Amino acid sequence: MIIDCHGHYTTAPKQLQEWRDAQIAALKEPKGKPEKGTIKVSDDEIRASVEGAQLKIQRERGTDLTIFSPRASGMGHHIGDATASEHWTAHCNDFVHRVCTLFPDNFIGVAQLPQTPGVSPKNCVAELERTVKELGFIGCNLSPDPSGSRWTDPPFTDRYWYPIYEKMVELDVPAMVHVSASCTPSVHFTGAHYLNGDTTAFMQFLSGDLFKDFPTLRFIIPHGGGAVPYHWGRYRGLAQDLKKPLLKDHLLKNVFFDTCVYHQPGIDLLAKVIPVENVLFASEMVGAVRGIDPETGFYYDDTKRYVDALPLSAADKQKIFEGNARRVFPRLDAHLKKRGR
Amino acid sequence: MIIDCHGHYTTAPKQLQEWRDAQIAALKEPKGKPEKGTIKVSDDEIRASVEGAQLKIQRERGTDLTIFSPRASGMGHHIGDATASEHWTAHCNDFVHRVCTLFPDNFIGVAQLPQTPGVSPKNCVAELERTVKELGFIGCNLSPDPSGSRWTDPPFTDRYWYPIYEKMVELDVPAMVHVSASCTPSVHFTGAHYLNGDTTAFMQFLSGDLFKDFPTLRFIIPHGGGAVPYHWGRYRGLAQDLKKPLLKDHLLKNVFFDTCVYHQPGIDLLAKVIPVENVLFASEMVGAVRGIDPETGFYYDDTKRYVDALPLSAADKQKIFEGNARRVFPRLDAHLKKRGR
Repeated sequence: MIIDCHGHYTTAPKQLQEWRDAQIAALKEPKGKPEKGTIKVSDDEIRASVEGAQLKIQRERGTDLTIFSPRASGMGHHIGDATASEHWTAHCNDFVHRVCTLFPDNFIGVAQLPQTPGVSPKNCVAELERTVKELGFIGCNLSPDPSGSRWTDPPFTDRYWYPIYEKMVELDVPAMVHVSASCTPSVHFTGAHYLNGDTTAFMQFLSGDLFKDFPTLRFIIPHGGGAVPYHWGRYRGLAQDLKKPLLKDHLLKNVFFDTCVYHQPGIDLLAKVIPVENVLFASEMVGAVRGIDPETGFYYDDTKRYVDALPLSAADKQKIFEGNARRVFPRLDAHLKKRGR
Repeated sequence: MIIDCHGHYTTAPKQLQEWRDAQIAALKEPKGKPEKGTIKVSDDEIRASVEGAQLKIQRERGTDLTIFSPRASGMGHHIGDATASEHWTAHCNDFVHRVCTLFPDNFIGVAQLPQTPGVSPKNCVAELERTVKELGFIGCNLSPDPSGSRWTDPPFTDRYWYPIYEKMVELDVPAMVHVSASCTPSVHFTGAHYLNGDTTAFMQFLSGDLFKDFPTLRFIIPHGGGAVPYHWGRYRGLAQDLKKPLLKDHLLKNVFFDTCVYHQPGIDLLAKVIPVENVLFASEMVGAVRGIDPETGFYYDDTKRYVDALPLSAADKQKIFEGNARRVFPRLDAHLKKRGR
């Protein structure tokens, strides 16, 4: 089977964004303390929101299951306070859960966390536990920069982050490193901030020794690892200058890359420099880039075609399409086995 | 001949940094207004500073001329006020000028500019003019983020930057997009901030229409363009979604990439997706990565070897090694012709 490890609910019914808009408006009021409240959406509306989009694309491209999380640019951790972030996050995760419940063969959930710049990630532990234990989610998204491109929080290797890592290890769930919107027009979200977040987090991991403290902690760096595989020689050299072990020993038991790179030469490079065990298939559809590439006649984000074209054995391709995801997300593997897949 | 378009004076005599340290200390005093003063360094000290480093490496690797600018991480635009930045910048540029005067066959200067976050780039015009007209410099470094990773200034496409562009066009000099140090441990300078600066500036150019207003303005994006060539499909797709022309028409008459990518697969990708006319040879030696790659037995930053190994014609390699630099830096071409090269 083909598992797409990186999909966001970019097509949620409009009531979700309307709730968020009202929350943001209320936050601007003097003494604004918006309530969590409820959002009314029918099952038919949920079905319709994915039927002509993610489900249709899965069928067309021949992929089976999408690891599904709330819209990344919508997370907006820098908007409002910690309570506002908690309310918004719970609604977003509940929406994802409804999709996964209606289409259990096609989607499985990954949680948004109620991060807030300058607020300890301790406050994310309860929502991670709720989504994994009650909603059946198998991982979370974790932003290294809740400030939205100001980079005001400590690096991922700082003990500041340890409470959420302890819960991740206890629940045996990985995190995808994923920033959200940018708070400045200088840093475009999908064209700069996302890739910068990936690159920056990798260099944080490289500079530190986090995985000595958490040998089973696992991160997926999306968007093909940002700039990292293209600069793999630079990173090998920086690790060497910093007297770190070889990257394969220092990082690659814990850090994985997805295939959200939207042209063949990029995927070719990824597969050439990163061990096949560290690459997880993903497309991020329906996501950052929505058009058809005039050079190929196919959608830019139809990344399955690029992986299909790699000069790898069937066994190696199976790792990228399925095996690695089942290993990095043990709760996914357990869920699939229970369903006989 | 082989022109290395990206070298910094990372080996300057210690008196330069001592002056800077004293300036920073004085800035911390109440009412601290440090003077510019002078820095005493002998010609022999200047000679010695490059003889065992850049000059030796040029000879060993068979490169001829380095386009040479002050140490990038030293620029520190976010430290002190605009006057402090002016004093420091003038000293740094004067040091580079002394190297170029002592070794005119080996080095030619590119200016640091006295940028300061939140201060109009108008204040950089005089130093650009001085370095080009009086010191014989052929270009400048321009940071899209003088704040040092907070991204507080407007994007490069904003009219805020037009005064410095007008002077660049008048003098017919290009800028290398180059950030400096990062003000936070979350964003490593050579392992994250530099590449993020490259990626972010490219996306700024892509989102705007700057080159309609300045059809002859030219930028070199260093470090192989940050994440850009690896994600060339993403950028072609984003331009399409934003209803921009094809990248070759939208940007590639004005935006160039250097070859500071420290492994063969990265250079292979660069040469595959970026037209040969847009690639300029560079190594950034002595720079970010100083070790020997155990996989090859050669220095990571010996990028000439990677370009030599490309499956390109001799004429195309000549463009990368020399022709493109002479075209992008017309004052370099004039200078070389005057010297019969």
